[in-house]
Amino acid sequence: MSEIVDSNSFTLKDYGINELLSKDAMYISWLEVEKAIAKAQGELNIIPVGMAQIIEEKAQYQNIDWEKVNALYLKQGHSFYPFVEVLSSACEEAGKYVHFGITTQNVQQTGELLVSKEINSRFLIIISDILENLAELANKYKETLMPGRTHGRHAVPITFGFKAATWISDILGATQRLKSFHNSGFTSMCGGAVGAYNALGEKGPELNNRVGNILGLTPMDVPARNIHSSILEYINELAMLVNPLNRIAEEVYITSVEEFGELSESFVAGQVGSSTMAQKINPKLSKGIIANSEKLYSIVSSLYYASARPFEADSSTNMLLDDQLHEALGLVKEVLIRAEKLTATLDVNVSKMAENAEITNGLDNTENIMMNLARIIGKANAHKVLYEISTEAERSKSNFRDCILNNEELNKHFKKNELINMLDPKNYIGLSTEIAVSQAKKAKEQSFILKQLYMNE
Amino acid sequence: MSEIVDSNSFTLKDYGINELLSKDAMYISWLEVEKAIAKAQGELNIIPVGMAQIIEEKAQYQNIDWEKVNALYLKQGHSFYPFVEVLSSACEEAGKYVHFGITTQNVQQTGELLVSKEINSRFLIIISDILENLAELANKYKETLMPGRTHGRHAVPITFGFKAATWISDILGATQRLKSFHNSGFTSMCGGAVGAYNALGEKGPELNNRVGNILGLTPMDVPARNIHSSILEYINELAMLVNPLNRIAEEVYITSVEEFGELSESFVAGQVGSSTMAQKINPKLSKGIIANSEKLYSIVSSLYYASARPFEADSSTNMLLDDQLHEALGLVKEVLIRAEKLTATLDVNVSKMAENAEITNGLDNTENIMMNLARIIGKANAHKVLYEISTEAERSKSNFRDCILNNEELNKHFKKNELINMLDPKNYIGLSTEIAVSQAKKAKEQSFILKQLYMNE
Amino acid sequence: MSEIVDSNSFTLKDYGINELLSKDAMYISWLEVEKAIAKAQGELNIIPVGMAQIIEEKAQYQNIDWEKVNALYLKQGHSFYPFVEVLSSACEEAGKYVHFGITTQNVQQTGELLVSKEINSRFLIIISDILENLAELANKYKETLMPGRTHGRHAVPITFGFKAATWISDILGATQRLKSFHNSGFTSMCGGAVGAYNALGEKGPELNNRVGNILGLTPMDVPARNIHSSILEYINELAMLVNPLNRIAEEVYITSVEEFGELSESFVAGQVGSSTMAQKINPKLSKGIIANSEKLYSIVSSLYYASARPFEADSSTNMLLDDQLHEALGLVKEVLIRAEKLTATLDVNVSKMAENAEITNGLDNTENIMMNLARIIGKANAHKVLYEISTEAERSKSNFRDCILNNEELNKHFKKNELINMLDPKNYIGLSTEIAVSQAKKAKEQSFILKQLYMNE
Amino acid sequence: MSEIVDSNSFTLKDYGINELLSKDAMYISWLEVEKAIAKAQGELNIIPVGMAQIIEEKAQYQNIDWEKVNALYLKQGHSFYPFVEVLSSACEEAGKYVHFGITTQNVQQTGELLVSKEINSRFLIIISDILENLAELANKYKETLMPGRTHGRHAVPITFGFKAATWISDILGATQRLKSFHNSGFTSMCGGAVGAYNALGEKGPELNNRVGNILGLTPMDVPARNIHSSILEYINELAMLVNPLNRIAEEVYITSVEEFGELSESFVAGQVGSSTMAQKINPKLSKGIIANSEKLYSIVSSLYYASARPFEADSSTNMLLDDQLHEALGLVKEVLIRAEKLTATLDVNVSKMAENAEITNGLDNTENIMMNLARIIGKANAHKVLYEISTEAERSKSNFRDCILNNEELNKHFKKNELINMLDPKNYIGLSTEIAVSQAKKAKEQSFILKQLYMNE
Repeated sequence: MSEIVDSNSFTLKDYGINELLSKDAMYISWLEVEKAIAKAQGELNIIPVGMAQIIEEKAQYQNIDWEKVNALYLKQGHSFYPFVEVLSSACEEAGKYVHFGITTQNVQQTGELLVSKEINSRFLIIISDILENLAELANKYKETLMPGRTHGRHAVPITFGFKAATWISDILGATQRLKSFHNSGFTSMCGGAVGAYNALGEKGPELNNRVGNILGLTPMDVPARNIHSSILEYINELAMLVNPLNRIAEEVYITSVEEFGELSESFVAGQVGSSTMAQKINPKLSKGIIANSEKLYSIVSSLYYASARPFEADSSTNMLLDDQLHEALGLVKEVLIRAEKLTATLDVNVSKMAENAEITNGLDNTENIMMNLARIIGKANAHKVLYEISTEAERSKSNFRDCILNNEELNKHFKKNELINMLDPKNYIGLSTEIAVSQAKKAKEQSFILKQLYMNE
Repeated sequence: MSEIVDSNSFTLKDYGINELLSKDAMYISWLEVEKAIAKAQGELNIIPVGMAQIIEEKAQYQNIDWEKVNALYLKQGHSFYPFVEVLSSACEEAGKYVHFGITTQNVQQTGELLVSKEINSRFLIIISDILENLAELANKYKETLMPGRTHGRHAVPITFGFKAATWISDILGATQRLKSFHNSGFTSMCGGAVGAYNALGEKGPELNNRVGNILGLTPMDVPARNIHSSILEYINELAMLVNPLNRIAEEVYITSVEEFGELSESFVAGQVGSSTMAQKINPKLSKGIIANSEKLYSIVSSLYYASARPFEADSSTNMLLDDQLHEALGLVKEVLIRAEKLTATLDVNVSKMAENAEITNGLDNTENIMMNLARIIGKANAHKVLYEISTEAERSKSNFRDCILNNEELNKHFKKNELINMLDPKNYIGLSTEIAVSQAKKAKEQSFILKQLYMNE
Repeated sequence: MSEIVDSNSFTLKDYGINELLSKDAMYISWLEVEKAIAKAQGELNIIPVGMAQIIEEKAQYQNIDWEKVNALYLKQGHSFYPFVEVLSSACEEAGKYVHFGITTQNVQQTGELLVSKEINSRFLIIISDILENLAELANKYKETLMPGRTHGRHAVPITFGFKAATWISDILGATQRLKSFHNSGFTSMCGGAVGAYNALGEKGPELNNRVGNILGLTPMDVPARNIHSSILEYINELAMLVNPLNRIAEEVYITSVEEFGELSESFVAGQVGSSTMAQKINPKLSKGIIANSEKLYSIVSSLYYASARPFEADSSTNMLLDDQLHEALGLVKEVLIRAEKLTATLDVNVSKMAENAEITNGLDNTENIMMNLARIIGKANAHKVLYEISTEAERSKSNFRDCILNNEELNKHFKKNELINMLDPKNYIGLSTEIAVSQAKKAKEQSFILKQLYMNE
Repeated sequence: MSEIVDSNSFTLKDYGINELLSKDAMYISWLEVEKAIAKAQGELNIIPVGMAQIIEEKAQYQNIDWEKVNALYLKQGHSFYPFVEVLSSACEEAGKYVHFGITTQNVQQTGELLVSKEINSRFLIIISDILENLAELANKYKETLMPGRTHGRHAVPITFGFKAATWISDILGATQRLKSFHNSGFTSMCGGAVGAYNALGEKGPELNNRVGNILGLTPMDVPARNIHSSILEYINELAMLVNPLNRIAEEVYITSVEEFGELSESFVAGQVGSSTMAQKINPKLSKGIIANSEKLYSIVSSLYYASARPFEADSSTNMLLDDQLHEALGLVKEVLIRAEKLTATLDVNVSKMAENAEITNGLDNTENIMMNLARIIGKANAHKVLYEISTEAERSKSNFRDCILNNEELNKHFKKNELINMLDPKNYIGLSTEIAVSQAKKAKEQSFILKQLYMNE
């Protein structure tokens, strides 16, 4: 495992992904691909159809002498050929037609994309759960007042439901891309030594297509071994997915600091935060989301360097990409299972949020007053008036509310009562609530669709 | 300019992109966005329709006192507000409705994506030219024999047309994604301070949609300022596009070495390669493609780190992303204009390719012999026979052709003449020619479509 | 300029660095290197000593026809040879000995490291100023109570002076490394076409050494053109330097949020924070530090990919490294000038810090009570007692102070008064003050030394 | 294991490093650190000296109930506290003084740097072996003629010994830095919760120093938990070391292509290169060096992003850095063991190198002729003459040697015989041989020193 683990890696529900990341899952995928190739070659009379059927029957995990595969591996120094040899033996008289006219990477890469697609279904199920959790949060806290913050300062008031809605919106975008990739992005490659069907001849392209169809993958148009766009695009999509989850984790991590006190991870009885500070209840799920996300990001760039190498195939590129695809899957799993738990159990401190919205004494509503004034004296002039009031309040450390209520210009245009209302953060949340509700609805709908589509895939 | 330049940057056709990368293009985009907002606000009665019309009339480049904008910039320390102030003055009585209820990033980010989309049309035109060039190469050299190479060694024979076809296939994939992004990926954002329409109220979402429609951009579903997926996805797509071009450059760069002598850049009279080695004719276009590509790759990862920062907006994220989007556009331009020139003028040394295909004395056709033998004694056995012949030839430094012709087992199954034919690289190019032709056709079709779609956009 | 700029880039003191980053500075460095080579070649009788003297006299900026250099540049497509041609003309009869037996990169790389070293002196002067500023802060606020925070939660109390001391310590480490690099890390290279002195012969190594001595650079042991360790190590050192400054900026950026309210950038009259939220006073210096730092980090990895390319020299590597070294210098300049201003003018809100230290009602002193208890009942038992009190307080949302004062076990061992004292954050700052003072002293000493060493370099 | 493995990972000598990368080595390091702390605390009367002695006796691997540690780990969700609890039990009456006044990271980080230093000794031993191998190569092939290549073309002739010498020189530089880091760069940290010695008080700094001394590590000046410069600098040094080894691997990988045919990996009987191309003998060691190096590079940038996070400590930073340090050690191990094998068994094809040096018919000696001519007609004029001859030869595809021998201008100044000699690559290798010999000597000396220093560490 090259994902970054902590105890959560062993206690959270893994949606069956760990098994799919195992070496056995890889072996099984090789068998699936070899069987698909034999089946297609039988259909196309590249090999005798009876032989193809025997291969399909015999190429089962339990029929393979895996110990022998491993022993040959150390001797031959080849990551795949020992498997072919042992598989051939297992297929008895049909063994002579095993792995016929194709090359290692045809099976290994197709196999890893086959497993990746299976894992990706699980990812989409976890996303479904995350979206459901976020919909809950957006709905439940649609009116929960809190300060919006930009550039390290309060900006204008929002509700926590709105914040959750922005997370939903970002995740929905990533989900859309990932679903679209799921349908057509995972490719199969079956073109032999360099992708020109040298050993397969005229029936090659048909075989290439048929193998893809059998496996539920998209056959590459030209099955060239140095085209890695499927892997690159997939890891990009994963990084795009992980990014908003990382942002959620950052928000929880920082606003669980006592001064904010807004969001925190649900405390689990018995958990220890520090070996010396007995009181510590640290954000652990968020920590794991951040660290695993950051590791994923570092992969993205390196893939491009490796994929630009020349000629028909490059073993160093394959070696790196195989590793990094596997690593990416592990990292994303760690992010997703934590994000699901985090969004399912998040503690929202409603009263602290409301309190925080008030700590600037109305300053967060400056735009509100400006806009009301702008309708009378114009935008630029209004900006100027409010700029002066607010910077003077800052300079003299005065209470902003008092400065507003006592300002001559404002008193010319508005009644005291109007000003008091304009200063109340509750009255200036824009469409926070509506956006929370509508995104929650979209999240639930998408969550439902995802389960329909991928639960039994 | 933060792209990496050499003299080609100043002498190659730039498809009008340099102008679009200028500061003026940015200013013009801001005017476009402010006008679109005013127009939409007039339509929706957010501001008086007459005032909207005045803004649309007055917000012209020549009406703005740009010197004053720059002077205020240094004083106010804000990258945008001086523009708003000066624009307001220029709009006279309508000035009070300029930039109404929206925030800086609404205009800056929408503006930069507007320009990016315009630049992207030019990119697609250059791709059209590159595809045409590659189609020429694939067709012309569809039967040009050369060795296919994998893992730093000869593999099986191919034609140069096949190699060009693999480039086409990879580029066509990237083009498809980029076109799809072009249609819906460039977004507009018009939701005010944090995206909750605080200052715009109920008409906000309609305004947000209308602004997008006017500008030909996709309005963000939730116009939240910390959702950067449009920029991230775009730069990913650009990296995916650049990657196969980089691979072409690597192939030219390495095979122009005299030992290969296969591909080389067309020599331009008067060009100097070295200040001390007068004879040097170096691959200059390729060099620039490689260096600019590598710089682009380094950007991709950094975007994710920056985009994960919490809260409703983060100025350091904006600052980095604005810079890196602009830089990415410049880098891609440098790659594309060189790639166009390179593919248009590439020198292909047909005779050296043929010669190289022969230097192993038939070894490159090992698979051919093995497959023929496999049909008789099975794949695994045939692999074993050929493995022994070839490694023995290597060990004893013997001529492989002789070893084949004298091999007892082979002579049992094949006539001398058959063996000689099996050893000839010309007879073992698989579907290289067919693939070259079919990809050339696809390239031409796509090239035509791209011109239709983006020439007059 | 490929650094990321905002108005500060144009208003802050630049320590003369911008001039050194200009194209003219590059040209001047080439002249310096060519003169040094001629001088050394004269001394070693590689060229006639009289000719060397003429070159030394004539190779002055004002004697070069730079327009002609630029015109030739576009024609020859070579970044350096036009300069050699024009310089040769300027040197009249000695022109035939200009650039004698050496190659482009000998001059360009040596020149850019020469300028880099000059810029690095300025960097060290800015660091001197930053250290002085931090020493001020550490001394002034050595007793200023505030909460220490780990893992997104309060940990134990510290003083702000201690925090400043940790920054000092980290910067002192980076400074030490940078000084050590300054002394011997900047290299000269003068070995001709591939570094084997083909055109220079037996006197080559002596020439290589002498050129380094004349220029104040370390001659490479083997002047091989594909050894880039000097550039790589330097950019690494710069990233190590920038990192703690980035951390300072992050601390200011986040704790200027109103809920913390601890650190903030000094407000400059007239500056605008938002085009719609007139009240906004955003952390601008910090923003620029963060964004420029992040861009620098992305460079570091890319250098290694580019530097691993094979053979005696690679033009794509040179192109990328030249660009990225120049970019790195610009980025570091932007970070340093902002960090100097930030540390010189930082606003420290002492009362808010004290208030924040109290908001957990003594919870931050849990370790204090535990350690006192540990001396009686052992560490593990004490941890258990305090863990239970604190998690129970959290669970029941009770006041921690009350829980402590009412705890049976604690009352067995301590008097009420003792417990009250143990709960007071002022009484549990460890050696915060002493560390503040001692690091301030070290910072001042180093600041003085840096000015001595590099002010007149 | 998160290094990228192939069969070599399991068959090559690992210098004992795998054991040091195991979980047990980590546990043992924790015990070492806790014992050092107890010992130092006893000496300083922070805890009773008798109790310290008991801890030193009992804190042995075999005394710890590791199953219980693992069970508690899942329950407490803390990576370290379970160990403290179980260790305390194991220390019986002294258990109450275990882990006294310090915090988790004090032990974990110090422990991992302790193991890293031990691993680094092994790294230096492997470097010693690599240097010895390279010295052999440089000496043996000091006069082996081959073409020098720059920018994807022949440049001037060199010897293979010179090429090996440039590798030596680069590695010696990295070794020097790594040795220097070995002496003082690995730090210990013992300052409690935030590094201000809150729980340790006045004796804290002395304890911090003493712990470092006992463990053979450099105590941090301020043991602040958010200063990660030791880890960052170390990983930088490792990347600097790996880079030249990667360059060697790239050279082998590309020049084992048949057209070059210069360097190749020694063939191991029984090894298979392809599942379909029975003849393939691929560069496997090089492949693994390249892939593992590239993965290491991607780590470097990510460390900086993670290390800039604010406050006194950040768990996501720790989590990422712990992982990436461990990964880096594994990756470097994989690179080094392959590089040792590669340099020990490299096949050098002397005759093919000589042949390659001749394929341009003297063109590689252009500089030689130019320099001879330059002494008569000046550098710039000579460059012009040779530029014209060589580009004309290229244009007309003529034999360069003939062009030279028939050139009027040259025949004016030189006799035919002189020209023939000037065209012979053997006569223009500069100081290739001398440099090969001198770097071989330095490599041997350093190799000897490294064994002296680190063999028994």
